Amino acid sequence: MTARHPAAHQASAARDDAAPKILDVPIGLHATGTRRETDSMGAVDVPADRYWGAQTQRSLIHFSIGDDRMPKAVYHAYGYVKKAAAIVNGRAGRLPAWKADLIEKVADEVIAGKLDDHFPLYVWQTGSGTQSNMNTNEVISNRAIQLVGSELGSKSPVHPNDHVNMGQSSNDTFPTAMHIAAVKATHERLLPSVQALQQAIAAKAKQWRDVVKIGRTHLEDAVPLTVGQEWSGYAHQLTQAIDRVTASAEGLYELAAGGTAVGTGLNAPPGFGEQVAAEIAAATGYPFTTAQNKFAAQGGLDAMAGASAGLRALAVPLMKIANDIRWLASGPRCGLGELILPANEPGSSIMPGKVNPTQCEAMVMVCIQVLSEDSAVAFAGSQGNFELNAMRPVIINNFLHAATIIADACTKLRQYCIEGTQLNRDRIDDYVNRSLMLVTALSPVIGYDKASAIAHKANDEGTTLREAALASGFISAEEFDRIVNPAAMVGRTLPSGG
Amino acid sequence: MTARHPAAHQASAARDDAAPKILDVPIGLHATGTRRETDSMGAVDVPADRYWGAQTQRSLIHFSIGDDRMPKAVYHAYGYVKKAAAIVNGRAGRLPAWKADLIEKVADEVIAGKLDDHFPLYVWQTGSGTQSNMNTNEVISNRAIQLVGSELGSKSPVHPNDHVNMGQSSNDTFPTAMHIAAVKATHERLLPSVQALQQAIAAKAKQWRDVVKIGRTHLEDAVPLTVGQEWSGYAHQLTQAIDRVTASAEGLYELAAGGTAVGTGLNAPPGFGEQVAAEIAAATGYPFTTAQNKFAAQGGLDAMAGASAGLRALAVPLMKIANDIRWLASGPRCGLGELILPANEPGSSIMPGKVNPTQCEAMVMVCIQVLSEDSAVAFAGSQGNFELNAMRPVIINNFLHAATIIADACTKLRQYCIEGTQLNRDRIDDYVNRSLMLVTALSPVIGYDKASAIAHKANDEGTTLREAALASGFISAEEFDRIVNPAAMVGRTLPSGG
Amino acid sequence: MTARHPAAHQASAARDDAAPKILDVPIGLHATGTRRETDSMGAVDVPADRYWGAQTQRSLIHFSIGDDRMPKAVYHAYGYVKKAAAIVNGRAGRLPAWKADLIEKVADEVIAGKLDDHFPLYVWQTGSGTQSNMNTNEVISNRAIQLVGSELGSKSPVHPNDHVNMGQSSNDTFPTAMHIAAVKATHERLLPSVQALQQAIAAKAKQWRDVVKIGRTHLEDAVPLTVGQEWSGYAHQLTQAIDRVTASAEGLYELAAGGTAVGTGLNAPPGFGEQVAAEIAAATGYPFTTAQNKFAAQGGLDAMAGASAGLRALAVPLMKIANDIRWLASGPRCGLGELILPANEPGSSIMPGKVNPTQCEAMVMVCIQVLSEDSAVAFAGSQGNFELNAMRPVIINNFLHAATIIADACTKLRQYCIEGTQLNRDRIDDYVNRSLMLVTALSPVIGYDKASAIAHKANDEGTTLREAALASGFISAEEFDRIVNPAAMVGRTLPSGG
Amino acid sequence: MTARHPAAHQASAARDDAAPKILDVPIGLHATGTRRETDSMGAVDVPADRYWGAQTQRSLIHFSIGDDRMPKAVYHAYGYVKKAAAIVNGRAGRLPAWKADLIEKVADEVIAGKLDDHFPLYVWQTGSGTQSNMNTNEVISNRAIQLVGSELGSKSPVHPNDHVNMGQSSNDTFPTAMHIAAVKATHERLLPSVQALQQAIAAKAKQWRDVVKIGRTHLEDAVPLTVGQEWSGYAHQLTQAIDRVTASAEGLYELAAGGTAVGTGLNAPPGFGEQVAAEIAAATGYPFTTAQNKFAAQGGLDAMAGASAGLRALAVPLMKIANDIRWLASGPRCGLGELILPANEPGSSIMPGKVNPTQCEAMVMVCIQVLSEDSAVAFAGSQGNFELNAMRPVIINNFLHAATIIADACTKLRQYCIEGTQLNRDRIDDYVNRSLMLVTALSPVIGYDKASAIAHKANDEGTTLREAALASGFISAEEFDRIVNPAAMVGRTLPSGG
Repeated sequence: MTARHPAAHQASAARDDAAPKILDVPIGLHATGTRRETDSMGAVDVPADRYWGAQTQRSLIHFSIGDDRMPKAVYHAYGYVKKAAAIVNGRAGRLPAWKADLIEKVADEVIAGKLDDHFPLYVWQTGSGTQSNMNTNEVISNRAIQLVGSELGSKSPVHPNDHVNMGQSSNDTFPTAMHIAAVKATHERLLPSVQALQQAIAAKAKQWRDVVKIGRTHLEDAVPLTVGQEWSGYAHQLTQAIDRVTASAEGLYELAAGGTAVGTGLNAPPGFGEQVAAEIAAATGYPFTTAQNKFAAQGGLDAMAGASAGLRALAVPLMKIANDIRWLASGPRCGLGELILPANEPGSSIMPGKVNPTQCEAMVMVCIQVLSEDSAVAFAGSQGNFELNAMRPVIINNFLHAATIIADACTKLRQYCIEGTQLNRDRIDDYVNRSLMLVTALSPVIGYDKASAIAHKANDEGTTLREAALASGFISAEEFDRIVNPAAMVGRTLPSGG
Repeated sequence: MTARHPAAHQASAARDDAAPKILDVPIGLHATGTRRETDSMGAVDVPADRYWGAQTQRSLIHFSIGDDRMPKAVYHAYGYVKKAAAIVNGRAGRLPAWKADLIEKVADEVIAGKLDDHFPLYVWQTGSGTQSNMNTNEVISNRAIQLVGSELGSKSPVHPNDHVNMGQSSNDTFPTAMHIAAVKATHERLLPSVQALQQAIAAKAKQWRDVVKIGRTHLEDAVPLTVGQEWSGYAHQLTQAIDRVTASAEGLYELAAGGTAVGTGLNAPPGFGEQVAAEIAAATGYPFTTAQNKFAAQGGLDAMAGASAGLRALAVPLMKIANDIRWLASGPRCGLGELILPANEPGSSIMPGKVNPTQCEAMVMVCIQVLSEDSAVAFAGSQGNFELNAMRPVIINNFLHAATIIADACTKLRQYCIEGTQLNRDRIDDYVNRSLMLVTALSPVIGYDKASAIAHKANDEGTTLREAALASGFISAEEFDRIVNPAAMVGRTLPSGG
Repeated sequence: MTARHPAAHQASAARDDAAPKILDVPIGLHATGTRRETDSMGAVDVPADRYWGAQTQRSLIHFSIGDDRMPKAVYHAYGYVKKAAAIVNGRAGRLPAWKADLIEKVADEVIAGKLDDHFPLYVWQTGSGTQSNMNTNEVISNRAIQLVGSELGSKSPVHPNDHVNMGQSSNDTFPTAMHIAAVKATHERLLPSVQALQQAIAAKAKQWRDVVKIGRTHLEDAVPLTVGQEWSGYAHQLTQAIDRVTASAEGLYELAAGGTAVGTGLNAPPGFGEQVAAEIAAATGYPFTTAQNKFAAQGGLDAMAGASAGLRALAVPLMKIANDIRWLASGPRCGLGELILPANEPGSSIMPGKVNPTQCEAMVMVCIQVLSEDSAVAFAGSQGNFELNAMRPVIINNFLHAATIIADACTKLRQYCIEGTQLNRDRIDDYVNRSLMLVTALSPVIGYDKASAIAHKANDEGTTLREAALASGFISAEEFDRIVNPAAMVGRTLPSGG
Repeated sequence: MTARHPAAHQASAARDDAAPKILDVPIGLHATGTRRETDSMGAVDVPADRYWGAQTQRSLIHFSIGDDRMPKAVYHAYGYVKKAAAIVNGRAGRLPAWKADLIEKVADEVIAGKLDDHFPLYVWQTGSGTQSNMNTNEVISNRAIQLVGSELGSKSPVHPNDHVNMGQSSNDTFPTAMHIAAVKATHERLLPSVQALQQAIAAKAKQWRDVVKIGRTHLEDAVPLTVGQEWSGYAHQLTQAIDRVTASAEGLYELAAGGTAVGTGLNAPPGFGEQVAAEIAAATGYPFTTAQNKFAAQGGLDAMAGASAGLRALAVPLMKIANDIRWLASGPRCGLGELILPANEPGSSIMPGKVNPTQCEAMVMVCIQVLSEDSAVAFAGSQGNFELNAMRPVIINNFLHAATIIADACTKLRQYCIEGTQLNRDRIDDYVNRSLMLVTALSPVIGYDKASAIAHKANDEGTTLREAALASGFISAEEFDRIVNPAAMVGRTLPSGG
């Protein structure tokens, strides 16, 4: 037996354990005051009604920075890691079956969020996430201890390091939990919300497919298109963004678990990473696999930075869409006024009757926030050293926060803005009739230079385009009316994506 | 009387009010279920145990995006605004004295944080902050109504718009509250924390002023300096950063209040801005004045972007200092190992006995976060349109968050890292003795080229510098020993800033 | 015939043109002074030895901001667009064959860079890139005019708008040229350079696969791995980054051409976009297709922002790799000293014999630059309005600049750093022997807590791990020597990616 | 004599030098092929017509990354450093007077830009800037050698290190040159340009002080203000930005010179830093002084990051102003259309007669670029280690680039947009007459709720505000006409800053 294969040694010890009875104790510690917990540095008092141990308590003392807590989603994800490891360790006999089962049972409680109150740590802690890993280990240990009627803090019969953390290190499990949490946030919260928004916009594009409106480039009047075409562009931007989010998150399926301390897998048996990934895949329903190269997976966090770029790929078009909508709805009398947004609330504390594009403003602010949080992820991603990128908490916190707020902002924008938006048809028609840029249709017939002269003439003299065109002598009234036909200028009215 | 001077009209109405008795009712509404509240768009049910009204409730429904709430500090600051406006309005007779006093009394409760539970709104709301202004107006209105035994939601005798918001708009008061909150965060939370850290570092610089160590440039061995000199550099960087924070926050003393809806001061009497600023200055103790140009103060948020640059000016050197310390403490046996940091917690879930520079890591992460939040502020600051920058919530939230976490991180770094840091004198001495860069002292005597040859020879042959120098024949042993004297090479050992 | 199908009209006009003889005139205008050129706003003097026309000259006057010129790669790409449009227009009879051939011939000169001196415009110009499109149109027009012996500036027989720009708008062709230029930069300059670097690193990983070294996490001593494993991590990070660059650039294959002014394709015949994309694909060898939704492709530049995220995905690991290498090479006597980098130049103007990790520093700076330029792309990408994102020049300039400098930095890092890097075996071995973290291998045998006590004891007493372990009584000498075997702790020495 | 005071030794050697005759040789080397130059690593061939030496040539070979060259302004600034050092060294007798004079004479040629062709190095080089320092030393050495008729490359009688670099290191002189270059760019290029823009805007504010227009908040119609008030806001934002630029650049007056290699001043005599700073102040006219703490000045680049924040403080309001102007000028028929911008060029290659807000677009793009370059400076500023921040080239290049483009963009915006902007009075008046938000003036009289009902009624029924108000019965026609008077609603028409 070498240092690489300590399993047999453990397993023999494991066989000696007698399986205790698992009690039916609900979650909760009905004690007051403090309890003495220990770790390798000595004893610490912890609140008696909490499952956590010494290392969690030390972290609480040393890192009460602001009020940013490690997202609960990270712990739920960690639940999957601990569950998978217990199954794999139990199956191989490195843990007695009852102990593996017990850890798995508690891990399921963690996954379900039932132990959320026992994960109090701050985001700003050790850069490896060790303290959150130990928080998980400690809580599972003590909850398991409770379930067998043993003494809290005794680490027996379920030791936080030797059993709950068996075959693991924070260095490989924390990025594993990050990936799981990020995948779930992406697929279960973000994408459904964006897809619903995309569909709502596409429905509007279809509804308004034949409404001709003036186009604008450089904010200036341009040639016409339909409202449906314009909105099909929004819908298609979101479709592509959804693809980018999805593709960008693919790298998250590779899990570091199995690399342990530095990527070599020391103290984890051969195949451990593969088996743990398979169990996590089975439990979550996502195609997780073990990372091809653990040194890359632990020394860097490139998959997280890549996934964050997906969030950015969403924020970029959403900001454009939200801006377009609020501009098109500007007015009611002194703005563009093409859209009428739902009036969800009084707009002003001083100006009575004011309605503002508040959902769009919220979305724009969310997009700015997401762009900056994505920058933080990239910056932090670049700051790894050797066998560890010790910027993990700042990365996962920004990713999950950004994914959450942009998901929710999509839902709100859809519910309280897009779905209730209406067209101001009079205004829309009026613009089309007034625009000088319809002259463009004359260009292939009379040439750019003459067409340009007509447009300038109309603008300078304040006439209609038709008046200026006929006055120019370059074109007859019949030809003008045939060619300068807005409805004919917009082409295919509902392109793909609409 | 013109539209600009409606005060007399109001005042005459005001004189008719009879002063009701102010009851001694503690804060709290002991009702269950919901209460009907109204605004200009109709009626809404609100929780019966909350003071807020219809507009707050609408915002809660429409903007539940993530879990970012408008910082309480904004409401505390708004308390000062409402108090100041009430005083000024009361003094001028636009509000009856008893009503002004009542608003002031409740505003004091807001300032003291006693009504915090009644400010539930999200950050991601209308970009003007109107909903948080209305939240404040509604809470003050209903709390005042409670104090005179009137009916909640009746808006009588204290109306949220007509009385609490008198002479005000969200457009001028929200940036006013932002400035107040930012000034207080800067001066009461951030600067004391940074100053204490600076002093702790300066104390170490003094303590270690004569300990000669090797310098490093490009990460490579360089000529010696003292530990005290190195730390004096850190201390001085912080001194300068403190100056930058302070100077950058000066612009915050100019308040928009008085500009009302678009900066013209419509519906506010002449001098209102000046008087409100004076009252806020009196109540807070900071030298607030009215903004010189309200159009600039409301159309832009440049003072906030400027103040945020102060936070960045702190993050930049703090990141360098935290990185230096963790590198100098790297090891214990395979790193630089010049510093010994306090062992606050076990460092690894798998590697027993590991101690990590966790406070430095937390600080580095905080600095990355602050840099990205500062970017968000600048981006948002650039996105104003016409008479309003509607990116206010994202700006104040990032500013206050960044100020808070960097303040706390300074405190923790000081307490749990700097103050307990010790030198590894053996290692430090050893490096000085081994370095080849002491050859630099020979350069003015024998010239750069010969000195360079000696250094290369020692490096190639693995000898000491002295051996190589003597073997070169360029210098005698006596001269070498006289000139190559590390202690003499470090100059004045405690420069200013140390 | 409707406004949507002006082709027949044009084609009939085209049939009347008699084909002039194409002269064999080399590129160059041997005139001095100025030439009078005109556009729709009137006449302008241009340098007589330049092909450009009035609009280019106007832009030169109005936009001489700094010294950033539109990258030549954009014009080369525009050459493909003009060539493809001429082929398609000629084939359909909208242009006489000789005229289409002539435009194609000149477009080939543009593609080959032979007319580079005639594209002088600044980056900071109109946000649509219209002026660079017109620069291309004007140069092709006048060069074609020269080739048929006609009068420069006459726009006859090849008109810049009516013929060179036929069926096109800046709004659709500029993003088309951006995509072409970005694809070529990515595939022809960037990826080969990164791949060569990846291979050089992988070769080192293979060469050093069995050299056991100490691992470092949190900068602190950790358990061992091999140098080959560490470098396999670098190689794998780059392999994944190459995949991300490639995948991120896929969106660039969709071309806006065919959308003309606002995405409707006004003045372009049906199928024009498809045919132009096919010709561009044929000429360049890349699988370009027409964009599925032209409103998305012109109103947004999401594909560019997406491609830029690929550059960032490269900068993030490259920064980590460059930092690792310079830290591992730090010293020679007072740093980590595991690597010996090539000494390419004297390192210091004052410290003789100093060698610095200059290639790594250049790479780190390049990465910072790329990260910031990528941010600019995302920011600009969010700022579109309606039918146009008018931030195109800043986007393409940043993308091409970032792609170029990171490509070149990879080449230089490979040539002048990676390929010549050597190991300091003595130092590497020494660290492994001294590290206390080998204790981790004992953990599965004696438990985490006892292993931790041994490590602390060795550290506190300055002994070897073996001494402390035996003194502890927890383990026998035989067991210690069997288990604590660095070579056995590193597992599989060359993982995938190495 | 100790290692700290080698001056006497040098001085005695200096006295032995006989002053050679200074020849009247114009700049230029009329040789072809290559010349052999040497440094401490051996010989290198350099182009025979260039003054540079071996180290410059090595850098050219190793760092040809992209085409970013170290800005010439850095070398001009370095000229001041070399001149000042020569004066101080000569005065103290460390250099013979003739040699000091000769170095000063050549340094003056560098300052004047006459040797610009001899500074070819790339930005992406060693992070300390050593290669650019050596480029300067080598060029001055060889040019001086030419002026005394000695042999190029002989380093005699003026040695690049021993004489031109005497008492200096790249570590202290490069940041000194950075500061000088940044101060000059700020005060001589940037501020004059911004001030002229501010004045042009203020002049428009004065010109249009009494033109009543509708205000817009949230893009929505609000209460009126005057055009002059709106523009006074722009002017005031710029006034404050100018103050921020100026204040942010103050830190640049502290110079690192005198710190030499690591901040201790090794090999520089006492007082050297003070004297050099005084000479630089005398030569440049700026109040430069020696840095209070050289360890801070060389280990960090906080003053540069601080100065860069000044550029950002300018970009933030400029982006808002440029956006406002292009939106207000949008149209001509389907946009806001309040402003008429100069038509500097045809706006479209396809849409005849189109005029676009191109100067505003260029400014917006420049602002985005400046914001991202400022981020690069902050990021790089955070990445120092120990006695050196080795990110200097990326910092100075971004700063100077950003300062230059924003300066030039201000000039162009002023010349080609602001100065020629006119009002569309009909449109402006029309908006005021149509707006419903004039109802706000009724609010203090009839209360917010009734005023709100009137506004909603007018909006819903499409009537004028007056019609709805009278129909409501809340107010008489006389009262309405007295109170709802736009001209009376705008208050003081020209606030400070206008």
